[in-house]
Amino acid sequence: MENGKEYRDVFYVSDGTAITSETLGHAVLGQFPLQISQTTLPFVETTDRAEHVKGLIDKKHQQTGQKPLVFFSIVLPEVKAIIEQANAHFYDVLNVLVEPLKKDLGLEPHPQLHRSHSIEKDAASYQNRIAAVEYTLAHDDGVSLNNLDQADIILLGVSRCGKTPTSLYLAMQFGIRAVNYPFIEDDMASLKLPKEIEPYRFKTFGLTIDTERLMAIRHERYANSDYASQQQCEKELNRVESLFRREAIPYLNTTTLSVEEISTRLLELSGLKRSMW
Amino acid sequence: MENGKEYRDVFYVSDGTAITSETLGHAVLGQFPLQISQTTLPFVETTDRAEHVKGLIDKKHQQTGQKPLVFFSIVLPEVKAIIEQANAHFYDVLNVLVEPLKKDLGLEPHPQLHRSHSIEKDAASYQNRIAAVEYTLAHDDGVSLNNLDQADIILLGVSRCGKTPTSLYLAMQFGIRAVNYPFIEDDMASLKLPKEIEPYRFKTFGLTIDTERLMAIRHERYANSDYASQQQCEKELNRVESLFRREAIPYLNTTTLSVEEISTRLLELSGLKRSMW
Repeated sequence: MENGKEYRDVFYVSDGTAITSETLGHAVLGQFPLQISQTTLPFVETTDRAEHVKGLIDKKHQQTGQKPLVFFSIVLPEVKAIIEQANAHFYDVLNVLVEPLKKDLGLEPHPQLHRSHSIEKDAASYQNRIAAVEYTLAHDDGVSLNNLDQADIILLGVSRCGKTPTSLYLAMQFGIRAVNYPFIEDDMASLKLPKEIEPYRFKTFGLTIDTERLMAIRHERYANSDYASQQQCEKELNRVESLFRREAIPYLNTTTLSVEEISTRLLELSGLKRSMW
Repeated sequence: MENGKEYRDVFYVSDGTAITSETLGHAVLGQFPLQISQTTLPFVETTDRAEHVKGLIDKKHQQTGQKPLVFFSIVLPEVKAIIEQANAHFYDVLNVLVEPLKKDLGLEPHPQLHRSHSIEKDAASYQNRIAAVEYTLAHDDGVSLNNLDQADIILLGVSRCGKTPTSLYLAMQFGIRAVNYPFIEDDMASLKLPKEIEPYRFKTFGLTIDTERLMAIRHERYANSDYASQQQCEKELNRVESLFRREAIPYLNTTTLSVEEISTRLLELSGLKRSMW
């Protein structure tokens, strides 16, 4: 026990990337007061590998005297059967919902290997996602303002308010082509939308951030610089927020939000269809 | 019905980003022969918004005469109660596993809003992830070979074999600091590891790809160029693969793999701890 929390070993086991098992296991475990140690074992597709995995789980059980928690997703019955012989608590992350769905739909499932996160599932959508990452990289940080007709969204804001990670997340996760453009010190005297962006203002969204947080982030990059000073940060934020209001550009304060939350809110604001891959 | 598949409307509803509901719903639905139309409704935190969501679901039911499928995760009982009055099939993506876990552990869950994908959950790990994205961007495509001591992994390969999207995915998803370096035509005459990388060769991994696929990808960028020719692609791939073998650098063929699969395999090969955020 640490911090009064019970300790448990957790395994994520899958015949694919194990990303689904991890995502769900994380979310479920977050509800319990547990101190956990996690191991992810992807691509468990053969009985040999299954025996190895069973061995790892049993070893933890012997070491700790506690049954490990195993979140798993395995299609092949002979592989699954071996793993389920381990001394552990098992949570079948897919089947737990496949069963009720089967009943509700009156349809039989067709279990397939490599279901999630494989190219074969949907090659066109995968290629589109990779193209979106490339477009977004080429349009990061104001580097290029060409081909804005192809942009799904254009993010505006001061330097270091979260534009780049948000753009990349939108591209990687949702296949969104995101442009981002920073307003810098030279823009401040007479702040306006760049003329290349003007025709696409309907795609623009602003990001802003609290002064304290911006100072802290800039300080980490350039300690004790004018760039990180309270005066500079306040000035930039005030002017850029005025621009957003003047131009009726919807904007979002990123101070307490993760890239997932910023991205999700932008998709809501923009009405862009999210197509998770 | 289309392609002989039954049609269903699907909703992902959450008081957070809805990413967990989408991930699991996708994986589960992938097992059934369904033609689906999906709507994601994040940040459903109030009874007002819940009424709106209930309305949307009921409207689909009236239009199609089929009960929509609703994958949801909602903590507040009064919000949840409203949504569950809609005319639909419901799948509570978290509770379906929280219940058995509760029994197995003999512990009471402490449901919390904004569980997954929020900064508050683990600020240090979030900052680390964003720092990894920045490091990775700064070290994309051989732009910088400075600070390689801070790299978790160094990816090598010919131009357009998947290094950049893989690096960004590793950073964004797993907080891995990834460097990638392309071998270009000028390197081909006497191919060797760059001297800056030599001391960190224990962190290097190669990516390779089938000639046909590389030609297709390059052709899309520069149609009918030497760069995209069979001769050039074959030459580069042969030489780079020889280098990998000569230098005993583990490598992976990316032809049929998604960035998720490449990343997961690299983590396995490298023994890097994956810490999904």
